[in-house]
Order: sequence, then structure tokens, then C-alpha cells
Amino acid sequence: MPPPRQSARDPRSRGRRPAGSGTREAIAAAARAQFGLLGYDRTSMRSVALEAGVDPTLVSHFYGSKQQLFVTVVDLPFDAGAAVGQLLDGPRAGIGRRLADFVLDVLEQPEGRARMTGLVRAAAAEDAAAELVRRRVSTEFLHPLAAGLGVDASEQRAALVASQVVGLVMARYVVRLEPLARLSPEAVAAAVAPTFQRYLTGRDVIAP
Amino acid sequence: MPPPRQSARDPRSRGRRPAGSGTREAIAAAARAQFGLLGYDRTSMRSVALEAGVDPTLVSHFYGSKQQLFVTVVDLPFDAGAAVGQLLDGPRAGIGRRLADFVLDVLEQPEGRARMTGLVRAAAAEDAAAELVRRRVSTEFLHPLAAGLGVDASEQRAALVASQVVGLVMARYVVRLEPLARLSPEAVAAAVAPTFQRYLTGRDVIAP
Repeated sequence: MPPPRQSARDPRSRGRRPAGSGTREAIAAAARAQFGLLGYDRTSMRSVALEAGVDPTLVSHFYGSKQQLFVTVVDLPFDAGAAVGQLLDGPRAGIGRRLADFVLDVLEQPEGRARMTGLVRAAAAEDAAAELVRRRVSTEFLHPLAAGLGVDASEQRAALVASQVVGLVMARYVVRLEPLARLSPEAVAAAVAPTFQRYLTGRDVIAP
Repeated sequence: MPPPRQSARDPRSRGRRPAGSGTREAIAAAARAQFGLLGYDRTSMRSVALEAGVDPTLVSHFYGSKQQLFVTVVDLPFDAGAAVGQLLDGPRAGIGRRLADFVLDVLEQPEGRARMTGLVRAAAAEDAAAELVRRRVSTEFLHPLAAGLGVDASEQRAALVASQVVGLVMARYVVRLEPLARLSPEAVAAAVAPTFQRYLTGRDVIAP
């Protein structure tokens, strides 16, 4: 684990970062880290400014409100359009496994995990963040994926997949439910792949 | 929707509830409602006292800390031991459907939904609450259920079921992902029942 940012330097010599190039990005990185670690409620404009080493007024100057900051910095940790194209490229019977491998791959990378847990944690606390999950996870990623398979009721299928993805993020990475938390990514992917496959392509998923 | 508690009476005539019989229960009811509605972070000892119409010191007198209050009042909205017995009573091939019907039944009742969303929301924000989900949902309910089926790797199976239950609570009731949020309980139960069945009894769930 890297040493905490602030104890690394003598506080007296630690100058605040001037407004300008890199500041906006430093604020975004600090905000992403804090939303992931602390959740939406306990992250404040002030705590983000402190972490980024900038004056608090700069955070509102660049991002407006905490909600706007959240919506701007907490994006999916991958390009949803590219991912959909890549996942659809293969046999239809393997879509569940490809999606499971992809999801675990994202979640096992520190940056991807921080963003996804941040998104889910925030969605649990805050309606604005719930809207973000709806938009980013369902509208921009899972719904186009289901639609690309040419299945009926693609929105319902996408929502069911989203429920298992969100539940996996919660159970394995937030609540750390054992033994799910310590299973290898491959074992988890193998366990949830048939769930994804059925939600996306199964005939019995849709009420007659 | 019932009228808000406080506007129903003239504030000047509204006396605080005296310490004594019913006070402890009134605090518990107020705390349960607020944890469900506001989540763990935004519920405070003071807001609970206000809602219950008692002096804030009585909340700490009866329950100690906010964490202790939470752990005490937010129990599962059903008797886990009785539910396990009832769910195991039937053909093994129908356990997924019986569990799905049971879960939806709990979640479609206002009290059950408030407690379960409160539990999941709190678990997203707070380690103490995450521990409570581990204990209440997994250790006291789903693990005994899986163990009662006599399957191998019952803890892992219980954790996988928990991930889909938590994901369902989040997607349908917290994030309100459409069309999952507006589907009938029967349609949702039909969609997730085979997932529960496979997590609980499927051979391919366990890595060889």
C-alpha cells in the first residue's frame, strides 16, 4: 500500500497546487478515490480538495456541486461501446461467459474496482447516483449488449444482468461475503456465467 | 401514504413521550423507518429521537451508539430458522422457486422492504452493517438453507444466492432499474428462481 499522501511531505513545506494544468485532473483523481473508498455521503468537496492539495473553491469552480462532481468523475472504468462490440464478437452460446470474464477482469483491477464499488455504494445512498447507475450500467452498456443479441425484452434482460452484477460488486467487494470474497476470479466467473447467459438469451426469463 | 408524523399535531401541544413503557419500542420503530428511508449515514441519534418524539438522551440510554441501535433494530423481517424449515419442506427441484417466492413476498411487504433496503443500503456505507448482512442474511438464513439441502460447498452456494438477493434489492427497490422495478413479483420470482436453484444445487457452480 502506498504511504498516505499527506504524511509523505512536511506539512509546512507542502504548498497547495496552483490552479491550472493538471489541477482539474488531480481533483478528479482525488474525487474518484474518495467516492470509491468513503462512499458518496462521506465524501465532501472539502475532503476532495484536501486530498488533491488544492483550495476548496477550485473544486466548485471546476465541478460545481458534489453531485456534478460525482456524475462527471465516476464513469464506467471502460469504454462501454467498445466493450459491447467486443463481447458480441463470438458465439451466442458463449456470451454469458465472455461477459462474466469481462466483468471480473474489470473488478479485479484496482481502478476498475474503485470506480464500480464507488458507483454502487453511491447508488445505495443517493438518488442522483442511482440515476447514474441506470444510465451508465444499463442504458449505455447492458441494454445495447442485450439489444445486439437480437433478443426480445432486451431491457428486462439487461436489468436482470445488472442486478447480478451489482449484487456481485456488493457481495464480493463491499460486504466481502465469504467464501465469495476469496474465490479466484475464474471460479466466480464460472459460477455467474450461466446466470448471465440465461438472463440474456434464456426463453424462460420472459413471462409468457 | 400516511401524513407525516409531525405535521399531524400542533407542535406547541406536542409533548415529548416520557421514558417508560413503549418508549423503547417507539425508538426502535423510528430508527427502523429512518435507516430504511435515509440509509445508515444520514440517520442520526438525534433524528431518531425527533421522529420518535423522545429526548435524544433516551436513545443513547436505551441503545448506546448508532451502530448498536442499528444492529439491534435492523433484524431480518422474518424468522430465519422458521423460514429455513418451511423452505426445505418440499421437493429439492423446487427449492429455487420456493426461495424466490419467499424473497419476493418479503420484499413486497412495506415493512419487509424497508428493513431489507435499510440493511443493504447500510451495508454499502458501513462496515458494521456489512458484518450484519454477513451474519443475518448468510450465516443465519442462506447458509443453513444450503446446508439443509446436504449439498457440498454450502457456504459458497449461500454467498452466491446472497449476491443475487442483494442485487435484486438494489436493482428493483433502491436503484429502481426499469423494467425490473415495475415487473410483477411473480415475473421477477420466475426470472430469478432458476438462478437460485442452480446456485443451491447445480453441480457446475463449484470449481472442480
